[in-house]
Amino acid sequence: MNNERIQLGHGSGGRMMNELIHDLFRRRFSNPQLNALDDGAILPEPGGRLAFATDSFVVDPLFFPGGNIGDLAVNGTINDLCMCGSRPLWLSAGFIIEEGLACSDLEIIVGAMAAAAAAAQVRIVTGDTKVVERGKADRLFINTSGIGVISHNPAPGSCRIEPGDRLILSGTLGDHGIAVLSQRSHLGFSTPLQSDTAPLHELTARLLEACGGGVHAMRDPTRGGLAALCNEFARSAGVEIRLDETALPVRPEVAAACELLGLDPLYIANEGKLVAAVAADAAERALEALKSHPLGREAAVIGEVRKGEAGLVAMRTILGGWRVVDLPAGELLPRIC
Amino acid sequence: MNNERIQLGHGSGGRMMNELIHDLFRRRFSNPQLNALDDGAILPEPGGRLAFATDSFVVDPLFFPGGNIGDLAVNGTINDLCMCGSRPLWLSAGFIIEEGLACSDLEIIVGAMAAAAAAAQVRIVTGDTKVVERGKADRLFINTSGIGVISHNPAPGSCRIEPGDRLILSGTLGDHGIAVLSQRSHLGFSTPLQSDTAPLHELTARLLEACGGGVHAMRDPTRGGLAALCNEFARSAGVEIRLDETALPVRPEVAAACELLGLDPLYIANEGKLVAAVAADAAERALEALKSHPLGREAAVIGEVRKGEAGLVAMRTILGGWRVVDLPAGELLPRIC
Repeated sequence: MNNERIQLGHGSGGRMMNELIHDLFRRRFSNPQLNALDDGAILPEPGGRLAFATDSFVVDPLFFPGGNIGDLAVNGTINDLCMCGSRPLWLSAGFIIEEGLACSDLEIIVGAMAAAAAAAQVRIVTGDTKVVERGKADRLFINTSGIGVISHNPAPGSCRIEPGDRLILSGTLGDHGIAVLSQRSHLGFSTPLQSDTAPLHELTARLLEACGGGVHAMRDPTRGGLAALCNEFARSAGVEIRLDETALPVRPEVAAACELLGLDPLYIANEGKLVAAVAADAAERALEALKSHPLGREAAVIGEVRKGEAGLVAMRTILGGWRVVDLPAGELLPRIC
Repeated sequence: MNNERIQLGHGSGGRMMNELIHDLFRRRFSNPQLNALDDGAILPEPGGRLAFATDSFVVDPLFFPGGNIGDLAVNGTINDLCMCGSRPLWLSAGFIIEEGLACSDLEIIVGAMAAAAAAAQVRIVTGDTKVVERGKADRLFINTSGIGVISHNPAPGSCRIEPGDRLILSGTLGDHGIAVLSQRSHLGFSTPLQSDTAPLHELTARLLEACGGGVHAMRDPTRGGLAALCNEFARSAGVEIRLDETALPVRPEVAAACELLGLDPLYIANEGKLVAAVAADAAERALEALKSHPLGREAAVIGEVRKGEAGLVAMRTILGGWRVVDLPAGELLPRIC
């Protein structure tokens, strides 16, 4: 790219957009489907039911300890596909760029997307680029959508959660949210903590291989954190969920930052963790399967599903009392993903 | 929705976002896949090769004569899927909303999306909502991605264009671009003209039924208009394209607006038109098939493909001379789609 900053012409459908597509996107994402540069990608017959997911990323700042909006966007949709019990295969990438974005930043971000896609063996097969005037967006928003193929039957789904299920969390809570917060200049604190952004396809594959239909549901605790996830599970399945605070893995630096800022790790976003609702008799196997992978080493049973009161999430605290874990009412941390 | 304007909490992953999803998106888009409200949609085995397309919409203003960003976003991705020779089946919808957007506007837009999806018999099966602070986006951006199934073999693709092919345009040029422009208050002109936003699935189905493999490529002339499309075709296939200006259908009011503003209808965006490169011996059948549908009544053969100079697009003008039709260099009309 000859120009150092993105201009409106890069979204024109004309020469400048062609240069951007050829010099950056096609070079970094190169694969036969994308290279055809038609209006959409043509994909081989997948042979199975499909999972289809979409996610837009508006994280602020674009770069944070442990990642940037690019790998976050690729891993985020990969993980949504994994949570449906599918093997992610193909991604799309839609860029909304604010005029004036440094091309060097875009280059780094696109490079991170290519690396994240390669690491998870998915292909970015189609894309779109829009540029809006200065002041009409915040540097860069990325949408990724994706297609996966479902190998296990029945596929996990929150409606399959049953009383007696164990809830297993694959690792520590709150790393992504606190890492992004630490980067926001106006907060003026720093921590060695990194975002946990990571693709979870190997973790979900091991879990499904070990437990098959015993995995009733999987979801990643992103926006709204574990609290939102448990509330969604409890409502979807019409069950009560009981969490055990002593079992929740939280890094000391995350706990310290939360203490300082008056935040609760239960509500902080994660980008490389999953929660599985697993049949009681499969819980031990599930835990072993997760712990056998580097991304699941700190996996723990954190609660269980009861018939109880439909939609209620309660947590036994460290002090032995009970606390209701509600959905977050408003926005705690805008633009965390 | 109790609140009259979108707040940051509507993107929180918490209670307010749940209300938005249940009270608006789920109500308007209701279908079994979406209603499961898992991280992605689970879709039946499609039985065939897939087409996969994505498009982000940043049109300004959100409402314009003949449509709004909602039906534009649904029809736009439907059309990208159609251009690959597929039957569109499933869409995703990703919303990036600026804090402060009137909920009533969002309601109208989402209603238009639901109506457009129903009209084309596609389902919006998964979605995502992000809200950014006031001043960090421009009211609303929508990404739609979609999956279609390819029924014809070989599928159309720009690499299949051959010397001798006829170029057929399905209708008048420039309606969408001029309709959006007319709505921008600072331009201070008005016209009865409406955007041509429409789903082209029936048109492409008739074309493929009539001509099968004789349809070498299809594309819709959106951003960059017919000029960008022809240049892309000429480059992809390594051929020369010759257009005939006298054959180009342009409404008098579009021609007048272009004259006034110093614009060229060749470069103006369309949202309900297609260009097909068709084998010479199939051109007559193709034209008949297009004209048999209301959206193709004004279809015309507008040019042909030559071996000539690879990548060149030339147009015989009304006065009988020749003019090179280049890619637009910069941005003529930002945020037209």
